[in-house]
Amino acid sequence: MKAEIIAVGTELLMGQIVNTNAQYIAKGLADVGVGVYYQTVVGDNASRMKEALGIARSRADLIICTGGLGPTQDDLTRDVLAEFLGRKLVMYGPSMDKIAAFFEKRGTPMVESNARQALTLEGADALPNETGMAVGTAVTQDGTHYILLPGPPREMKPMFDHAVKPWIESRSGHVMPLFSVMLKFAGIGESFLENRLLDLIEAQTDPTIAPYAKEGEVAIRLTTRAASREAANAKLQPLEAEIRSRVGDHLFASEDITLEQQVLHMLSERGLRLAVAESCTGGQLSDLLTAIPGSSEAFAGGVICYTNGLKHKLLQVPMDVLEGEGAPGAVSEETARLLAENVSRVTEADFGLSITGVAGPSESEGKPVGLVFIGVHGYGRTEVVQVQQSGNRETIKLRSAKSALYHLWKLLKSQL
Amino acid sequence: MKAEIIAVGTELLMGQIVNTNAQYIAKGLADVGVGVYYQTVVGDNASRMKEALGIARSRADLIICTGGLGPTQDDLTRDVLAEFLGRKLVMYGPSMDKIAAFFEKRGTPMVESNARQALTLEGADALPNETGMAVGTAVTQDGTHYILLPGPPREMKPMFDHAVKPWIESRSGHVMPLFSVMLKFAGIGESFLENRLLDLIEAQTDPTIAPYAKEGEVAIRLTTRAASREAANAKLQPLEAEIRSRVGDHLFASEDITLEQQVLHMLSERGLRLAVAESCTGGQLSDLLTAIPGSSEAFAGGVICYTNGLKHKLLQVPMDVLEGEGAPGAVSEETARLLAENVSRVTEADFGLSITGVAGPSESEGKPVGLVFIGVHGYGRTEVVQVQQSGNRETIKLRSAKSALYHLWKLLKSQL
Repeated sequence: MKAEIIAVGTELLMGQIVNTNAQYIAKGLADVGVGVYYQTVVGDNASRMKEALGIARSRADLIICTGGLGPTQDDLTRDVLAEFLGRKLVMYGPSMDKIAAFFEKRGTPMVESNARQALTLEGADALPNETGMAVGTAVTQDGTHYILLPGPPREMKPMFDHAVKPWIESRSGHVMPLFSVMLKFAGIGESFLENRLLDLIEAQTDPTIAPYAKEGEVAIRLTTRAASREAANAKLQPLEAEIRSRVGDHLFASEDITLEQQVLHMLSERGLRLAVAESCTGGQLSDLLTAIPGSSEAFAGGVICYTNGLKHKLLQVPMDVLEGEGAPGAVSEETARLLAENVSRVTEADFGLSITGVAGPSESEGKPVGLVFIGVHGYGRTEVVQVQQSGNRETIKLRSAKSALYHLWKLLKSQL
Repeated sequence: MKAEIIAVGTELLMGQIVNTNAQYIAKGLADVGVGVYYQTVVGDNASRMKEALGIARSRADLIICTGGLGPTQDDLTRDVLAEFLGRKLVMYGPSMDKIAAFFEKRGTPMVESNARQALTLEGADALPNETGMAVGTAVTQDGTHYILLPGPPREMKPMFDHAVKPWIESRSGHVMPLFSVMLKFAGIGESFLENRLLDLIEAQTDPTIAPYAKEGEVAIRLTTRAASREAANAKLQPLEAEIRSRVGDHLFASEDITLEQQVLHMLSERGLRLAVAESCTGGQLSDLLTAIPGSSEAFAGGVICYTNGLKHKLLQVPMDVLEGEGAPGAVSEETARLLAENVSRVTEADFGLSITGVAGPSESEGKPVGLVFIGVHGYGRTEVVQVQQSGNRETIKLRSAKSALYHLWKLLKSQL
């Protein structure tokens, strides 16, 4: 099956928003074994949309459009597809009921144009919208599949995951469903990881091995088709075991969770609490941790000791460690150690994690940009790690926060 | 001039990365008055790239390709365009020198394929690459302009801004350059702002008025063509004055800076320092502030008082304010006030800014998700503002952090 994604919207075309929908859909199609050959963006203009559909039909057999299903006169996608395929628009009852109920609850009369959101094509499958009003559409004509999805990502994503994927799977000619396992790594670069697994990646056929990289984390997805979860596991597990034997030291999860989720999970499982002392990361580590719902169970908070004054006042690092002739300075093993130990003491937390370094753009204390010390205090001991990060201020901050989480995870793992 | 953007790369097509280049270019073209009619993404495949070029030529007179200028065999864009236009590839000397110098400095022999990055088309203009190896290309044939840019954003952006924009400007038939002013607003929603300016937006011809929205901030760009900066100002200033008279209370800058930059600037101008007490935002406010180079001049740091224990231990909020029958609780005006006052006292900072609220996903202390109290202490007084944020945990955190900055900015402004 060859797919093409058409994103509709003048705000995309003009660069007012980024086309994250195309990425999400392309990734999701890859998961179900469908290759995307083209992506197109077109404005809210009927004749150009029709032209884009015509070109797509000539080269793809699955066409997924996002955007233009809203209530306004700019929202043309369903009308254009109806005309393109020579089908009528019909009202989808459950969506109409939902829209009417919404206005009834608000106690305001329904604006007429809102009813447009309940329209789909005659003979098409309606795709329910879990988080919004506009119904989606899936229809096959002359061997080509057409799917219409809403533009807002919070409506598009659940519709794609829960309605579109199964719809495509049932038409893709594959007799067996896909099973996959996500392996997540920290403290190792993507290219280094790939290098260690190069022979496996080059020889892959079934299961497939797909690497994914995000700042500070690397993931590999193993995927196979099988008649059952057991049959899939019989193929996936030997490969996973081989990967573990090579790079298991860096594998923090075999499911799609972040490093901060894993660390918080390990801490709360053991009834332990963490406090942090952030200098150069300036709150980013805490921000990552508190992005996880329920993080307060294992995360107490901490101190943003951005200046030497605060390192001294709130975390009792002696001024003669921080400043003066021959002093180790704020960016030093000694300061990192004291910050980690003292933040755990003053907050009465079981673990103290500290980060102090030079985020740039200019050097500090004569120390180079990217030099960072990470202190991990817990289980009655303190370890300090020195790392040299590369990149700009933004990436140095993020990589340092992720690196601190990695070293905390290593300590937690060593105590299993 | 009608433009089409073609982004080349299998990693884009498969959804491994987001197509931020298309957005950047589309926005930049809008700045110089060029409309984008289509965006396309195509993989590293010569025949499909040629097909995309053919379609683009039939409907656009400016075609900008990004990606595929690197040294590997996958990087086909320049070869494909050369064949498409029937031109030879020629070596661009300055790029070749730069590549050779790079390898000489590293002390390693140059891998042959790297020379490919110095190739451009016969008769084309070479576009210098300030931050990388691959030279860009700009060429006109049969009335259509073709531009090739590298894929990595850190190479593409400076090349687009410094070489492509003037190249297009000189061919767009406009005799006068563009001038614009960016107005930035906080504490006001995009739709509310647009509503207040609706008659101006609808009547716009020259200067044009373009709204931009990012989470927690709204911007408007006024643009005009003029023979000189003075002539432009004569057109821009009356419009800016009219906008100021309507929504000036929310206008924090008439240049493209963030709210946190403006607040830090106002603080350091006055020799003042800020400390923060973050509960529900969990470090995000500090993270935003410390993203700005030099922020330590006006930002001391603060406390992530995520748990009640830390609010009490580090910031002396009495436990009977935080917990117990009839207590105001952690999410209350009283706690916000004490946090703001106490964080400024214990850190010896001039200003204390506090945020305490319910980030969700579930309610807390019987208080609804999104309820947030912001405390601003400075100039000898403390103000507490209660806000009700909407959205999920992530947006509630970000909006609360931006909202706190807005209220601090208001206090600073009132003391001008």
